[in-house]
Amino acid sequence: MAESGGVPVHVAGGGPAPEGLVEAALGYEAALMADDLDALRDWFEPGDETVRADASGLLVGRDAITRFRGRRGGAASRRVSGLRVLPVAEGVAHVVVENAPAAGGRGVVSQLWRRAEGGWRIAAAHVTAPAPALDRRTWRVVGDPLLPAGGSGALDGRTVAVKDVFAVAGHPIGAGIPGYLAEAPVEARSAAAVEALRAAGASIRGIARTDQFAYSIAGRNPAYGTPPNPAVPGAISGGSTSGPAAAVALGQADLGLGTDTAGSIRVPASYQGLWGIRTTHGAVDREGVLPLAPRFDTVGWLTRDRETLEAAARASLPAASAAATGEPALVIAPALLHGLGPGVREVFEHGAAALRAAGADVRELDAPALASDALDELFAAFRTAQAAEAWRAHGEWITAHPGELADDVAARFAWASEVTPEREAAAIVALAAARTAIDAALGEALLLLPSAASVAPAFDAEGADIEAVRQATLRMTAVAGATGRPALSIPGLELDGAPLGTCVVGPRGGDLDLIARAGGWHEALAQRD
Amino acid sequence: MAESGGVPVHVAGGGPAPEGLVEAALGYEAALMADDLDALRDWFEPGDETVRADASGLLVGRDAITRFRGRRGGAASRRVSGLRVLPVAEGVAHVVVENAPAAGGRGVVSQLWRRAEGGWRIAAAHVTAPAPALDRRTWRVVGDPLLPAGGSGALDGRTVAVKDVFAVAGHPIGAGIPGYLAEAPVEARSAAAVEALRAAGASIRGIARTDQFAYSIAGRNPAYGTPPNPAVPGAISGGSTSGPAAAVALGQADLGLGTDTAGSIRVPASYQGLWGIRTTHGAVDREGVLPLAPRFDTVGWLTRDRETLEAAARASLPAASAAATGEPALVIAPALLHGLGPGVREVFEHGAAALRAAGADVRELDAPALASDALDELFAAFRTAQAAEAWRAHGEWITAHPGELADDVAARFAWASEVTPEREAAAIVALAAARTAIDAALGEALLLLPSAASVAPAFDAEGADIEAVRQATLRMTAVAGATGRPALSIPGLELDGAPLGTCVVGPRGGDLDLIARAGGWHEALAQRD
Repeated sequence: MAESGGVPVHVAGGGPAPEGLVEAALGYEAALMADDLDALRDWFEPGDETVRADASGLLVGRDAITRFRGRRGGAASRRVSGLRVLPVAEGVAHVVVENAPAAGGRGVVSQLWRRAEGGWRIAAAHVTAPAPALDRRTWRVVGDPLLPAGGSGALDGRTVAVKDVFAVAGHPIGAGIPGYLAEAPVEARSAAAVEALRAAGASIRGIARTDQFAYSIAGRNPAYGTPPNPAVPGAISGGSTSGPAAAVALGQADLGLGTDTAGSIRVPASYQGLWGIRTTHGAVDREGVLPLAPRFDTVGWLTRDRETLEAAARASLPAASAAATGEPALVIAPALLHGLGPGVREVFEHGAAALRAAGADVRELDAPALASDALDELFAAFRTAQAAEAWRAHGEWITAHPGELADDVAARFAWASEVTPEREAAAIVALAAARTAIDAALGEALLLLPSAASVAPAFDAEGADIEAVRQATLRMTAVAGATGRPALSIPGLELDGAPLGTCVVGPRGGDLDLIARAGGWHEALAQRD
Repeated sequence: MAESGGVPVHVAGGGPAPEGLVEAALGYEAALMADDLDALRDWFEPGDETVRADASGLLVGRDAITRFRGRRGGAASRRVSGLRVLPVAEGVAHVVVENAPAAGGRGVVSQLWRRAEGGWRIAAAHVTAPAPALDRRTWRVVGDPLLPAGGSGALDGRTVAVKDVFAVAGHPIGAGIPGYLAEAPVEARSAAAVEALRAAGASIRGIARTDQFAYSIAGRNPAYGTPPNPAVPGAISGGSTSGPAAAVALGQADLGLGTDTAGSIRVPASYQGLWGIRTTHGAVDREGVLPLAPRFDTVGWLTRDRETLEAAARASLPAASAAATGEPALVIAPALLHGLGPGVREVFEHGAAALRAAGADVRELDAPALASDALDELFAAFRTAQAAEAWRAHGEWITAHPGELADDVAARFAWASEVTPEREAAAIVALAAARTAIDAALGEALLLLPSAASVAPAFDAEGADIEAVRQATLRMTAVAGATGRPALSIPGLELDGAPLGTCVVGPRGGDLDLIARAGGWHEALAQRD
C-alpha cells in the first residue's frame, strides 16, 4: 500500500493511481474542511447529471449540490484514514475515502471521478457520516420504547411519536422552546390521548418536535432546526406537528400524535404525503395537552396508511360516530381556492376528476356562506379569536421571557397581545354566525379542498413567498377550525413529485365515517395515468 | 424519461441505457428482496477489490460482503422508485437506485457496474437506508438531553451515555433484560455517580445497553443486539459496558458511565480504542447502581480523550488521591500474559518498548504473588466470590423468571447458584491473602498488561474461540478486581488496524494520579513507525 501525505492509498490491481487523482481526492477533502464553497463547486462536474447522495436523499445537478453546501455551513472536522482507488477506464476511477471524524465514529465517501480538460472532477458522490444518537430536528427524546404499551388491541406493536405539547409521564412538556422546557415540571402522568393509544397496544417511541407553542404551520424551529421532509428533500416539514410528521414519514414511528388548531396536522400531512386527521372539536379528551386556543384546539394523528389512522381514531374517539346515510356529495367551494401556489389548482382538479370518475358525487357549491367575502370574514374572526386565546394561554410566560421566541412566532403573539376583549367578543359572534350558515349550506355534503395552498416550500424559499401561501393555506384550514368539524387529509396527489393532500371536511362527530369512506377516495387519488 | 417495469429510468445524456444494465440493476433488487444469497453473491464481482459501504462501515472483498449478508438475514422490504444511469465507458456505468422502503423513509444506493463475460456485475456499492429513531443495539433511551446538566464545571457541554444499571430519574433500570425492565420501578432520583457528572456540567444523553445483569464482557445481547464497534466493523463491542462504549466511539456521547467488576469497562475500551478506567473499589459512590458483586463492583468512565476522562474522574472522586512520588516503575508480570490471542504479545511488547524508549522504567517482575499458579488461584477465587455475590443479588429474580437470560449468562448464573457458603468463604480468604501478597510484590510499581487478551473478536467467531480469549482476558482483569485497585486502559496500540488497550493497574486511591501520568504513555503508545 502506498501513502500520500500520511494517508494509506490502496490501488486495485496494485498499479499506480491514475496521475493526479489522489491529489484531487485529497484536495477535495481539504476544500471541504475549509468550507471553501467555490473550490467545492469546482471539484464537481458542472451540469444537471452530477449527483450527491447522503442520508437526506439525492441531490441532482451541481447547482443543487452547491446550494445544499451553502445552507449547511461546513462539514464536521474529519481526518482521511484511507483511500481505495479502482481505475475503471482511461480517465475514470472510483474512489472510496474512509474518514475518522474528530467527534467520533467513522465516515465513508464513494466518488466517481472523471478527468476532463480542467483535471479530475467528481461525477457522483455518496456520503455516509456518523449518525447522531437522535435527530434533534425531529425528536426531543426517544426510547425503545420510551413508554411501553398499557394494554393490547388494534395498535399492538405500533409506535407513537408524541408532539411536545402532550404530557408524557416522567418528562416535562417542552412546547418547542428551550427556555420553557427548562422550567417545566416533570409530568406525573401522560395525557389522556397518549393513554388511549397505549391502552390499544401502542408503545410510545418518543417526544417529537413542535413549532413554538404550536403557533405556526411551517415546522421551522430556530432552537432545534427544521425536521426533514423525506417526501421533498430540501423542503420544510410543515407544522406545528412537525416532528411527529417527520418521524412517521421517515419510518421512525407508525403514528404521530398531534394537535390541530388551524392546520397543524393537515399541513404537515399534506407536505409529507401522510394521512392526517383533525378530529371534531372536543371529541378527543385534551386533558394533559398544553393549550394554544382551546376554542379550536383538537387532537389528531398522522400515519402512513389509512388502517393505522382508523385504529388510532377508534381507540380514541367515542364509538357512536355520526355517519351520513348513503353516499354524501363532495362539494368544492370555488371561493376557497384563492391564492393557491403554482400548479396546485390543476392537480386538485385532476384529483376531483379522478374521484368523479370513481363514482363520487363531486360538485361545486356556490353558497353565500362559502363566498369569498364570507370566507375572508370567517378567517379574520378565526385569527382574532385564536390569537386572544393564545395570548391568554401564554402571554404571561412570553412577557416574562423576552427573546425566547422566533421572530415570526413573536410577531404573531405581539399581534395577539393587542386583541381587545371587544374584538374577541365580536369575532366569536361572527364565528357562531358563520358556523350556522356553513352548516346550513353544506347539509350532509362533505367539503372537498386541497389540504394546503401549496406543496412544501423549500427551506430557503423567500419569506414573502412562504407568507403568501401560509395565508392562503390558513384561509382554507380555518373553515374546519371555525366550525369545529373534522378534516381528513388524504395523500395521493403529487405536483412534480411533491405530495399534496386532499382534504375532506365532514360533519361534527363524523370522524370515523370519514376515515372509513376514505379508502376508495385514496385509491382514486393515488392512481397515476 | 424511460420506464422499466414501472420504474422511471433516467439515462444521462438522454441515450439508451447500456444493454442489459437496467435489467441487471432490477434483478439485483429482486434478489435482495428475496434474500437470495447465492444470486446476490453472483451480482457482485468476485475477488478482493469489490467494496460495499453503508452506515456500519466499509466491507472489502466479495467474501466479506457475502458473510455480512448471511449474518443480516434479509434486507427490509422496499420498492425501487427511480434509477439514474450514468454510462462512463464501454461496459462501465454508474447507477443510482432510489427506493421507498415499505416501513417509511427513503433509501438510496450508488453502484458501479462493469460488464464482464458473465454479464453486468457490481464492483462497488454504497448503501443508505433510512435511519431508525435510535439504534436499539446501543441505546434504550436517548434525549436532547434526557436530563439537563445540574451545575456548571469542567464537563460543561459534555454528554453522557449511562449504562442501564444506574438509576436515572424518571426511568426504570433495565439491566439489559426486557423482562426485568418490564417490572422495574421508575427511579425517583438518579444515581450518585450520575449526579456527580451532572453537577460538573454534563448532561445525560441517554441510557445505553449493558450485557444482562452486567455479567459478561462480550456485549452480545440477545434481546437488543450487539452494539456496533466502529473501530472494527463486524466485531463485537465488548461489555458489559457495551452501549456506553459504542455510544462514545460513535461520537453519540462524550462520556460513557459504566461499571467494572471483572473488566466491564477495560474490555470494551480496549476493543473500541477508547480510554477507560475502573476506579479504586469504593472510591466512587455506588448508591443507585444495580449490583453484580458488590465486593468487586466499581464505577468508571469511557472517553475518546484523556482530558474528558480526567474531568469525569475529578468530578466524581475524592480530591485527595494517592500519588506516587517520583516516576513509578511499570512492571510486567510474564505469567499474566498467558493465552493471549494471535499477535497480541508482539503488539504489547512493541508498546512496552515504545514506553521504554520514551523514558519509562518498564521492567519484568517475577514475584511468587504474580506467578502462574498464584494467578490461577486468584482467578478461581475471584470467580467463585463474584459468582456467590451475583447469585445473592439476582438469583431470586432469575429463579422466578426462567428463560429470560441468554444461554451463556444463564450458564454462568447456574454455576453461581451452586457456590456453597463454604466455597465462598474459602475464596474470600484466598483473595485477602493474594491481595496482601500482590501489594507487597508491587510496592509503588504500576502493573502493565494488555487490557484484553485479544482484539475484538468477530461477531461470527466460533463460541469456543470467544470463550478461550474470554478466560484469558478475565484472568488478567481479575488482578485489579481482586485487589480493589484502579485500572486504566490507554488506547494507542493496534493489531492489523484493530485497537488494543494498554492497561496500567495502580495503587488503591491512585486513580487521578494514573490518569494524570497517562498522557505521556499514550503519546508513546500511539506513535506509528
